Amino acid sequence: MTRPLTIAQLAELAGVSTATVSKVVNGRAEVAPETRAAVESLIRRHGYRRQKRRVSPSALVELVFHALEGDYPIEIIKGVGQVAREHQLAVVLSELQHRHVPGQGWIEGVLSRRPTGVIAVFSGLTEEQRDQLDARDIPLVLLDPSGDPGHRLPSVGASNWSGGLSATRYLLDLGHRRIAIVTGPDFALSSRARLDGYRAALDRAGVPIDPELICEGDFLAGGGLAQAHRLLRLPDRPTAIFAANDEQAMGVYQAAYDLGLRIPDDLSVIGFDDLPAIRRAIPPLTTIRQPLTEMAAAAATMLVTLARGEPLQQSRLELGTDLVIRGSTAPPKA
Amino acid sequence: MTRPLTIAQLAELAGVSTATVSKVVNGRAEVAPETRAAVESLIRRHGYRRQKRRVSPSALVELVFHALEGDYPIEIIKGVGQVAREHQLAVVLSELQHRHVPGQGWIEGVLSRRPTGVIAVFSGLTEEQRDQLDARDIPLVLLDPSGDPGHRLPSVGASNWSGGLSATRYLLDLGHRRIAIVTGPDFALSSRARLDGYRAALDRAGVPIDPELICEGDFLAGGGLAQAHRLLRLPDRPTAIFAANDEQAMGVYQAAYDLGLRIPDDLSVIGFDDLPAIRRAIPPLTTIRQPLTEMAAAAATMLVTLARGEPLQQSRLELGTDLVIRGSTAPPKA
Repeated sequence: MTRPLTIAQLAELAGVSTATVSKVVNGRAEVAPETRAAVESLIRRHGYRRQKRRVSPSALVELVFHALEGDYPIEIIKGVGQVAREHQLAVVLSELQHRHVPGQGWIEGVLSRRPTGVIAVFSGLTEEQRDQLDARDIPLVLLDPSGDPGHRLPSVGASNWSGGLSATRYLLDLGHRRIAIVTGPDFALSSRARLDGYRAALDRAGVPIDPELICEGDFLAGGGLAQAHRLLRLPDRPTAIFAANDEQAMGVYQAAYDLGLRIPDDLSVIGFDDLPAIRRAIPPLTTIRQPLTEMAAAAATMLVTLARGEPLQQSRLELGTDLVIRGSTAPPKA
Repeated sequence: MTRPLTIAQLAELAGVSTATVSKVVNGRAEVAPETRAAVESLIRRHGYRRQKRRVSPSALVELVFHALEGDYPIEIIKGVGQVAREHQLAVVLSELQHRHVPGQGWIEGVLSRRPTGVIAVFSGLTEEQRDQLDARDIPLVLLDPSGDPGHRLPSVGASNWSGGLSATRYLLDLGHRRIAIVTGPDFALSSRARLDGYRAALDRAGVPIDPELICEGDFLAGGGLAQAHRLLRLPDRPTAIFAANDEQAMGVYQAAYDLGLRIPDDLSVIGFDDLPAIRRAIPPLTTIRQPLTEMAAAAATMLVTLARGEPLQQSRLELGTDLVIRGSTAPPKA
């Protein structure tokens, strides 16, 4: 066994620039396939060790949220915190005030703090911001990516498609045929995956898809409320609504209450996330559990691995979802 | 006007040690009253400026929570974040896993990060930990202190007594006479203040206090649930319950649901906090609004003031509470 190679040594062997090798080891996409293949083959043969940074990293992990609302960020902070504590890392928290890409002030702060790594939650970085992190060997992991994380950038998500399938299948099994979905925002790939799972379940069951029953939400209670008001006033209203996250499901509860419909007698509701707050909803919400804390811990572990210059087992990790049956779902009234 | 004095200059003028002056300016209690008076009189006359630290502080604010549960921490993170952004400070988040005093690992981490200051939420520091911060001129502000914050240590809370009074008065005005309270944990001074406000309202209204209707909770939904189950099974059960925070009120909702009692028809419930989640409760919860985000912003502003070596207007800040009337309260059934 030889000692694993540094970026400089790999660049020399491959006959490419260190910037190119850096892009390959940091999971960036803008490298010609044959170059990437050559570098990766060298890494497989010799191993790779992250160069000692000119400035050693501070014992900080940057955790950036697009928004701090409800239980979702708390679940994630807990998971990152668990791993951070094990590695004596402190967690720096930022909020993008509902933007999905951080501004200039944020990246300048990060570069001046020289963290061990960055975890971006339901948000992404610009090409330039990623270059700035790369240049300083600061690894980045996307958690529950908002857009399309790309093939190479390390990311952790849930099996959203399977979750959407399970939710819809369960409603079908109960006997529902008029099943509506309130999706997340259109740009979110996680929302698209849940919608595709919904479509697949209906297709497999031979239930025709009614475009009127598919509506776009915003992953917030307000979107669930507005869309459910519309859905529940249709002449042939749905007997079940799949809200693509729990926040929206709470908006559906409110709409049902406004219109004097009882859950689950008059309307079945199923969510997605399994946030602690919804266990206290009356009736408690049937939902698809997304293991947010475990996902966050996995992202932090990936970050520590990258910071050590060790290779990741997988650059895209998907954790499984589970159907959690509670009181908000029942067979439709005859 | 002369230039404000440093700790060393104040110590020389007062004929005491710099450690003693440091204790006075950092709001510590263990100084003889006459010594404190002498130093404070010098500060009033000459002003005080924080010494330039040997090591300049990092642009970090440490925010430490006893627990990350529900909406409460999110509201606080937002308030601290607002002020931190204005001052280009990043927020480092720690959780004490339900302990109210941090361990050795935490203080070592803080000392190595050399933050601009520390905000402890519903928690406190040991005497030794405070000395360690003092010795490095790292200011500390307590937010919603869990125990007794003492007279001198900078802290921010809400007017808990007045809030307890308002909640109970509102129930009395509706015509309730059998009013129960589920307090927070006994060690929390904020809980004691709410209870005293409850007692004062009953006394003023000439309603005798029934010790059976006063029970100790834990500020968590579980405590509200357990205590409400007990209260609602009393032969002469209460017609209203004042839950000393919103989390507990959600436990009371659950107990009412379990026992087939409707809110507000069979039971009025009032909370304390006004967390976002409870606005979605069905019926929406009447509560005492505690301005957590504003309290957190005030604590962060105090910290920035202290870090600049400027004097605080007040070392104990209490922000007002408001009665927010929603759907969980009604006159008792005749």
